[in-house]
Amino acid sequence: MARKRLKGFLKIENIDAVLNRLLSSVKVSLNIKRVRIAEAVGRVAAEDIYAPREYPPFDRAAVDGYAVRSSDTFSASPTNPALLKCVGTIDTSVIKDYGSMAWSPPTLEEGETYLVFTGAPIPVGADAVVPLEDTVTQGRNVLILKQVPPLANISRKGEDFRRGDTILCRGTIIMPWHVAALAQAGIGYVKVYQPVRVAVINTGDELTEVGSNKPGIINSAGPLIEAYVKLIGCEAVRLGIVRDNVREIREVVEKGLKEADVVVITGGSSVGGRDVVPEALFSIEGAELVFHGVNLRPGRTAGAFIINGKPVLMLSGLPVACYVGLEAILKPLIYHLLGTRPPPKVRVRATLTRRVVNVVGYRSFYRVRVYRGSDGRLYAEPLRLTGSGIISSLIKGNALLIIPEDTEGFDEGVEVEVELIGPIS
Amino acid sequence: MARKRLKGFLKIENIDAVLNRLLSSVKVSLNIKRVRIAEAVGRVAAEDIYAPREYPPFDRAAVDGYAVRSSDTFSASPTNPALLKCVGTIDTSVIKDYGSMAWSPPTLEEGETYLVFTGAPIPVGADAVVPLEDTVTQGRNVLILKQVPPLANISRKGEDFRRGDTILCRGTIIMPWHVAALAQAGIGYVKVYQPVRVAVINTGDELTEVGSNKPGIINSAGPLIEAYVKLIGCEAVRLGIVRDNVREIREVVEKGLKEADVVVITGGSSVGGRDVVPEALFSIEGAELVFHGVNLRPGRTAGAFIINGKPVLMLSGLPVACYVGLEAILKPLIYHLLGTRPPPKVRVRATLTRRVVNVVGYRSFYRVRVYRGSDGRLYAEPLRLTGSGIISSLIKGNALLIIPEDTEGFDEGVEVEVELIGPIS
Repeated sequence: MARKRLKGFLKIENIDAVLNRLLSSVKVSLNIKRVRIAEAVGRVAAEDIYAPREYPPFDRAAVDGYAVRSSDTFSASPTNPALLKCVGTIDTSVIKDYGSMAWSPPTLEEGETYLVFTGAPIPVGADAVVPLEDTVTQGRNVLILKQVPPLANISRKGEDFRRGDTILCRGTIIMPWHVAALAQAGIGYVKVYQPVRVAVINTGDELTEVGSNKPGIINSAGPLIEAYVKLIGCEAVRLGIVRDNVREIREVVEKGLKEADVVVITGGSSVGGRDVVPEALFSIEGAELVFHGVNLRPGRTAGAFIINGKPVLMLSGLPVACYVGLEAILKPLIYHLLGTRPPPKVRVRATLTRRVVNVVGYRSFYRVRVYRGSDGRLYAEPLRLTGSGIISSLIKGNALLIIPEDTEGFDEGVEVEVELIGPIS
Repeated sequence: MARKRLKGFLKIENIDAVLNRLLSSVKVSLNIKRVRIAEAVGRVAAEDIYAPREYPPFDRAAVDGYAVRSSDTFSASPTNPALLKCVGTIDTSVIKDYGSMAWSPPTLEEGETYLVFTGAPIPVGADAVVPLEDTVTQGRNVLILKQVPPLANISRKGEDFRRGDTILCRGTIIMPWHVAALAQAGIGYVKVYQPVRVAVINTGDELTEVGSNKPGIINSAGPLIEAYVKLIGCEAVRLGIVRDNVREIREVVEKGLKEADVVVITGGSSVGGRDVVPEALFSIEGAELVFHGVNLRPGRTAGAFIINGKPVLMLSGLPVACYVGLEAILKPLIYHLLGTRPPPKVRVRATLTRRVVNVVGYRSFYRVRVYRGSDGRLYAEPLRLTGSGIISSLIKGNALLIIPEDTEGFDEGVEVEVELIGPIS
């Protein structure tokens, strides 16, 4: 039984160092698409957008009511109303002509008022609007039942945006308020980056797809990665299961490099006899190894190549180790490609119910279960660190306790910060 | 100028009380769809799924190597290898026949070994696997270069899931690890709730849609709500702008009730002269007012009806007040309809740079800007509380400081907890 021997041992490097090296080596330009603003929510802006004009564009009524000189309402009350003469109406139909020859605001004289509608410009000289419900009309006259201070019920010109103010920066994840601000500025479309396409390849002679009749170990890393990349807004291109064969792996990776921006390949990257992924990748023209071996626990067999600027990530096919690789390597990579920062993580402090230990030098991802004790405090029960294949540890757990490489562990009763991955039980 | 007068004043009620009443009154049954597991990520499970069998289904090799009795490797080393006789090979092709008449695991005698591949069952009597890289083959014999302890490189039967263990509960937001666990259990499809459909109606004679030639105030609440509901995984059904007319509003709301699970309608719900939404809703058969007026600041004019079990939410058309209503009322409602809990919010503690005040009785949503000071600590600069229409306060800010109704405010220098809505600057 002659088998190919390992090409070299893993060289365990620090995650921050390898990530830095990986991010600074990639050269991927994402496509840009112009989409309707409400469709753009959750996506990354591919352009800077500045306010094209002041907003509001003029002092305008914030309610339906009567535009007044506030001094004319001095000490007005239901028993002592101020009497003003209504000399006209201004509604929003004038906006299209505002500032042109066709219409400009009239001037309000002392003792006069205009009926104005929400959003309409107020007359020159008016400095407040009395809401309709605080008025009574008597023919051409209006009784003002309530005193209003200067600026009452007026939206000032430019109080929301001045011309040139930033509405949206390239690299911003577009949120509902950006959409509202764009609409308000009259901007109906925005350029966004197209989702990063991630090709997913799973190697292993023993693997079979869920639902297939072929016997073997069901491929769980494939659906895991597909789901993960969808969840962070990417597009998954599943390229199926490949046998542990250098030529076949190379061909599928080349296909992935054509069809996607990033390739993730599982299995065949540790030092076992059939671990042929690094050999297959090295055989592709222009391939450069960025790292192979990283101080993640679980997940130390992860590695990466750059091929013509595109990253090819090698991850464990064991689901928990694979997940740690996705969190620690793929996610920062994706946000780097999009030119944005990952959304902040949900962290809480909780008291450890048991001691946890770390191999110094490794960054360890303990799965923990966070729960609220009868004393109202949060507790974190460590589930497990080892068991790269034990998915149930992520299902029974709802948080990750990440122990840094310079830490030996934490004692029982210590308060630690954990990252929530599910609701607190 | 005869105008309809207000029907009644707002009755300001507590948000928790009205939300409770609203949630307990709704009767909406969402459609259920069976989807491919990786497509189900981020959606809510509509069924409980239990492990149909043990996983792993038998003790199996976790690496490619030689299955041994660990006692046979006692004190083995490169200079003093243990010599074992290889009596056969077990690969994953036997799995389909495992436990049937066609194949059952052979028995390993003392001094013997089997070559086993990752995922394959190990022979009876074997209690460890020696990885290939710690072995050398010599014809039919194998030299073991390293001692292994019992259970080394073996995945035990049922160590991940026992038969009947919970993989997924109804009402769980499906995460990538659920997808992996389902795949592993041989389950390729899962039932999920269809996205909640939210009809969006914007009322106001003064409104015009972005990109339209009609003059007026551009409708920003429509795109805001559409974007918001998409972001939380719902489907938006935009029904456009409706004039301030009871009959027209009623007709569009009736359309919304047919086409959607929830209706959100903006404008026309405060006490101004053209505020005809409550009147229009009351005119629909079976309509019941749940509340009108709530202690949110901004956003106090919000209200809700239930019509044939479906909620109709009345929100301000001013974007910030509208956003507060979406956060405080629509979001909990959506997750209630889905039978799940909203994902945890990202909260951080930061020191206030200025005093903020609250009107006791109101729950106030200050927009704040959180930044890291030169001392490494987080600070929160209050931007503004008032200005229901000032969208820029959400763009310049990156967090919300929610002041509870029993609190008068916070002094400068006090540490407060804020909800992040964007990256920290």
